[in-house]
Amino acid sequence: MLKVGLLGAGRIGQVHAASIVAHSGCELVAVSDKFEDAAAKLAATYGIKAMSTDDIINDSSIDAVLIATSTDTHANLIEAATAAGKAVLCEKPVDLDLARAQACLKASAPHNKPIMIGFNRRFDPNFAALKRAFDNGEIGQGELLSITSFDPAPPPVSYIAVSGGIFRDMAIHDFDMACWIFGGLPEKVSASGSSIVDPEIGKAGDLDTAIITLTFPGGRMAVIKNSRRAVYGYDQRVELLGSEGLLSAQNVLENTVEKITTSGAVSAKPEYFFLERYARAYGQEWAAFVDAVKEGSDLPVTLEDGINALAVAEAAAKSAREGRSVDVKTEILGG
Amino acid sequence: MLKVGLLGAGRIGQVHAASIVAHSGCELVAVSDKFEDAAAKLAATYGIKAMSTDDIINDSSIDAVLIATSTDTHANLIEAATAAGKAVLCEKPVDLDLARAQACLKASAPHNKPIMIGFNRRFDPNFAALKRAFDNGEIGQGELLSITSFDPAPPPVSYIAVSGGIFRDMAIHDFDMACWIFGGLPEKVSASGSSIVDPEIGKAGDLDTAIITLTFPGGRMAVIKNSRRAVYGYDQRVELLGSEGLLSAQNVLENTVEKITTSGAVSAKPEYFFLERYARAYGQEWAAFVDAVKEGSDLPVTLEDGINALAVAEAAAKSAREGRSVDVKTEILGG
Amino acid sequence: MLKVGLLGAGRIGQVHAASIVAHSGCELVAVSDKFEDAAAKLAATYGIKAMSTDDIINDSSIDAVLIATSTDTHANLIEAATAAGKAVLCEKPVDLDLARAQACLKASAPHNKPIMIGFNRRFDPNFAALKRAFDNGEIGQGELLSITSFDPAPPPVSYIAVSGGIFRDMAIHDFDMACWIFGGLPEKVSASGSSIVDPEIGKAGDLDTAIITLTFPGGRMAVIKNSRRAVYGYDQRVELLGSEGLLSAQNVLENTVEKITTSGAVSAKPEYFFLERYARAYGQEWAAFVDAVKEGSDLPVTLEDGINALAVAEAAAKSAREGRSVDVKTEILGG
Amino acid sequence: MLKVGLLGAGRIGQVHAASIVAHSGCELVAVSDKFEDAAAKLAATYGIKAMSTDDIINDSSIDAVLIATSTDTHANLIEAATAAGKAVLCEKPVDLDLARAQACLKASAPHNKPIMIGFNRRFDPNFAALKRAFDNGEIGQGELLSITSFDPAPPPVSYIAVSGGIFRDMAIHDFDMACWIFGGLPEKVSASGSSIVDPEIGKAGDLDTAIITLTFPGGRMAVIKNSRRAVYGYDQRVELLGSEGLLSAQNVLENTVEKITTSGAVSAKPEYFFLERYARAYGQEWAAFVDAVKEGSDLPVTLEDGINALAVAEAAAKSAREGRSVDVKTEILGG
Repeated sequence: MLKVGLLGAGRIGQVHAASIVAHSGCELVAVSDKFEDAAAKLAATYGIKAMSTDDIINDSSIDAVLIATSTDTHANLIEAATAAGKAVLCEKPVDLDLARAQACLKASAPHNKPIMIGFNRRFDPNFAALKRAFDNGEIGQGELLSITSFDPAPPPVSYIAVSGGIFRDMAIHDFDMACWIFGGLPEKVSASGSSIVDPEIGKAGDLDTAIITLTFPGGRMAVIKNSRRAVYGYDQRVELLGSEGLLSAQNVLENTVEKITTSGAVSAKPEYFFLERYARAYGQEWAAFVDAVKEGSDLPVTLEDGINALAVAEAAAKSAREGRSVDVKTEILGG
Repeated sequence: MLKVGLLGAGRIGQVHAASIVAHSGCELVAVSDKFEDAAAKLAATYGIKAMSTDDIINDSSIDAVLIATSTDTHANLIEAATAAGKAVLCEKPVDLDLARAQACLKASAPHNKPIMIGFNRRFDPNFAALKRAFDNGEIGQGELLSITSFDPAPPPVSYIAVSGGIFRDMAIHDFDMACWIFGGLPEKVSASGSSIVDPEIGKAGDLDTAIITLTFPGGRMAVIKNSRRAVYGYDQRVELLGSEGLLSAQNVLENTVEKITTSGAVSAKPEYFFLERYARAYGQEWAAFVDAVKEGSDLPVTLEDGINALAVAEAAAKSAREGRSVDVKTEILGG
Repeated sequence: MLKVGLLGAGRIGQVHAASIVAHSGCELVAVSDKFEDAAAKLAATYGIKAMSTDDIINDSSIDAVLIATSTDTHANLIEAATAAGKAVLCEKPVDLDLARAQACLKASAPHNKPIMIGFNRRFDPNFAALKRAFDNGEIGQGELLSITSFDPAPPPVSYIAVSGGIFRDMAIHDFDMACWIFGGLPEKVSASGSSIVDPEIGKAGDLDTAIITLTFPGGRMAVIKNSRRAVYGYDQRVELLGSEGLLSAQNVLENTVEKITTSGAVSAKPEYFFLERYARAYGQEWAAFVDAVKEGSDLPVTLEDGINALAVAEAAAKSAREGRSVDVKTEILGG
Repeated sequence: MLKVGLLGAGRIGQVHAASIVAHSGCELVAVSDKFEDAAAKLAATYGIKAMSTDDIINDSSIDAVLIATSTDTHANLIEAATAAGKAVLCEKPVDLDLARAQACLKASAPHNKPIMIGFNRRFDPNFAALKRAFDNGEIGQGELLSITSFDPAPPPVSYIAVSGGIFRDMAIHDFDMACWIFGGLPEKVSASGSSIVDPEIGKAGDLDTAIITLTFPGGRMAVIKNSRRAVYGYDQRVELLGSEGLLSAQNVLENTVEKITTSGAVSAKPEYFFLERYARAYGQEWAAFVDAVKEGSDLPVTLEDGINALAVAEAAAKSAREGRSVDVKTEILGG
């Protein structure tokens, strides 16, 4: 029975707590949060201990930690937890700064503990089924990948200011999706965008609408469409054209009811927010982590994957700024 | 906190146990089963007591029981539990015999305790959304209801022999669905069927394919299509034509992935079995029971509803035997 | 080049005229109508002659006639045209009276000329594709057929009075569809109905909503749902459950546009009326007739097929009247 | 009655001939082709005259010409026909060279005759319905347009060499679609591509897979995805995200049949080629031209529209070559 400490009792920490508790192969034993009330409340719900983050990391009876704290603490906590001998599942992103993320990898690698980054979408049953069909060769060679990723509503401008920008904050999920599907980093990144949804986002120096084109080795192409606002819900689709066909994963709808009247045929909208849309994905993600830790097998998402997605985000930001295609290896990774 | 005893630790009992445990407003405290091993195993999983059915019924600290035992025990247990002051949620059907079900109502009514019958499909989010839209008047007057209800595979012939027949065992869900949507009993029932799926089912005196036509007051019509075999999964659809439009609830598919190749466009099948298909419905059903018991409000499904569905089943069986339309009130209910 | 005379220049005659003219292997040479203006107008449009019906039938330069006159003239015209050596495509039904239709077969058979009945739906590309897939064995043995057939709006009550009733006028298309798909006549017919759409239809002695269950040899079942009103358009669907799967042909929609807003996802309605819905079917029907006549091959729809559909209609009417299942062979065909 | 001469009797000329003949408000009187056999054959089919191109242009009884000859003759023929007082519908593109197209506009404008360019997709009922809904304000402000445009199979490499490249030959339809929907030219164009489908296309100096991002005034974004190969058919979709919702026009499928077996649910592929896919669009296009010419009203597609699409194509080609965003006005149109 894997004993687990949860770092962070906010919205996403609560989601993870439910997954940990529901899993029969592990036990949630403690939770910490910089807001002690939040930790205490979550502790009460599950009959576990509220502790300090340090105490959890140093508690030798705890085998693994799930890091669901604010982004600026991720790298430090990964390093501390692995140094203390713990397996780690850390929410994305590793850090907003690529160099810091790379340093984190360097610092934590010697401890040789499992570190997984929480790119939850890989575990969505729909995207996972698409990936499986592609890997099975069902559409031949992959040629043109298209990812649609729209949020239902923009976050507050105050959040935008500390978010790292649309590429690091929002598109990073899509960069990981593209790298995962095509199995590696793109060579070139070209991005354009605007702040048409909310000019205040533009004044804060960010974009709310963006199109990013990635060129992968061998001429494989990918395009990511991002918008901070799709009023009808969380619009998350993936489509892959191959030499022998097309695979697509469509949205998850609220229900299967259709109504036809003289005004047309009305069916349900996509699930509105990520908590509903990815509820099953979070459970699958946790289960995959537990399996890998227990069996000592390869992790389905690594710290390197987190760094790769961040490198693509940095290239996209540079491309959008400079109006030109950016070479990921030579201009971003310094290779 | 409602304290709950579970009678029956078989497949469906386990489904209910999970719903009870996941609900924050109640507590599963004990389980019984005629197979003591089954009860012990379920008790261990949830850290609760395995007891005898009698002891659960007579335990004054228990507020409610969920009856998930074999059909022939339902009526007796409803009577005993209500006599002991407990609220009851009982799996369908009340009994295979209409007269016995009617007697159960008579015997248990004086105890004035909540009795709900487990017609889980009413709580499926899709069917519930269809019902809500209809009740809101979105398609005007209801005129022609069509229910498709196919099992993925026929049960063993040994089960068929004790099942009460396709109308009492399988179509009873659909009879309840029709009565629920149209708000009352049909006047006439006309049924036809055959045993084309498996002639052994015919030799056992039952049908495996059936079409039942119901005529409701005011000329509203309903048709139910049943088959014991749809190799692609659990096919459960409802469609209602009204004076101002059509409402339909389609199947729940395994995922949203589509693949288009030179062979066509392939998408996912319906969920294969009722446990997946109605997973959410069981949770919603239990939540509705707990709410009604706690608030003392009307139950969403009553013992009378269970009797009505049984009366329609009896009419359908008689109609199929005699090749003629049967009047529910005069020929079945003796009214 | 097959020379064709068109009998009847009404709505359906005009539809056929367009198909004849568009076909490169035949030539429309003459048209007749009891309303001479209608014939003259159609003749002018296509630069052909308006003649009397008798003159067309007796014109030895004309090879084939298409009968699109009123129902009560069909049988007489079939007999006269075949006696005059012409191939015949006649609109359905052969006659409203089964005995008259049977007499027509007897009278016209000795002339040994091709007679095809216009069950246009067999030629709809969607239903034809379903039939082809079924005949290819793609879903194994056919077990349960379901036909949905709703008109957009009821005809005037004055028409109802002379229509022969819903079974002969409307369901007859569906009876032919069922007999075509299953390859022969049903053994038993059971029908129920009401006049919930328009009570005036009930006062005129007819139904506007009906459910007909057919039992075919070997226990194969079919159900037909009819309504005179589906406000959203012409709702025409076929669904066939087999031992290895399900085939369905869905409605043809007005366009492929979808709009998703906070109110839901809105897509197009079915084509509103039969002229749009079956535009392609009429062309295919005519082409199939021309091919069969030219090649001397079997006709895709025969006069016997027309009689069979009428026999099922008669059985359905009797069943609805008497509230019992009717045996087609012994009670209707006198076999 | 508009008298029409058809210049070009090849594949697309034949498509147009059928539209002209089917239209009741005009008359096809003559056809020309550099291959005299082709002209003679088409003339025989419709009972019209085969003439030389010059003779058609100089025949004062002819009111309009449809130019369906090879691309390199378009500009010359537009100039000659308008000089001779004829209305013109000319297939796209005006020319492969932007300067030549601009010169054509200058030369033909003084004749003041209607000149329409054949961007047939605007007349597809699906795209037209999407445009109408958008113009009606049904999704608010347009923000992110996405066009998928895949051919079923690449043309021969010999064609590629004279085609003008993927941007002028294939994407030009999509550039017109984007300019039409957003009502004007983009400010910036950024394009990337590869020759992953067929390396021979790359050796011929062209791309077979491309992604083009357009930035329109006000920050409205559009992305076009092109591939020369989608083995399953002609994949043509448009999707527009607005401030109040999403509009999409999906593919037209071969039929509406679905088959569900243990292997999944199989439905029809998109129509395979543009002749089937856009059959209705060609008819609507011609009807719109006839209407505008007869009523003297504005043409739905102008020569300026053809020049605009060409300018975007030139910008895209430059962007793909130079790996940077290109400003359409300053770098291409010299504004």
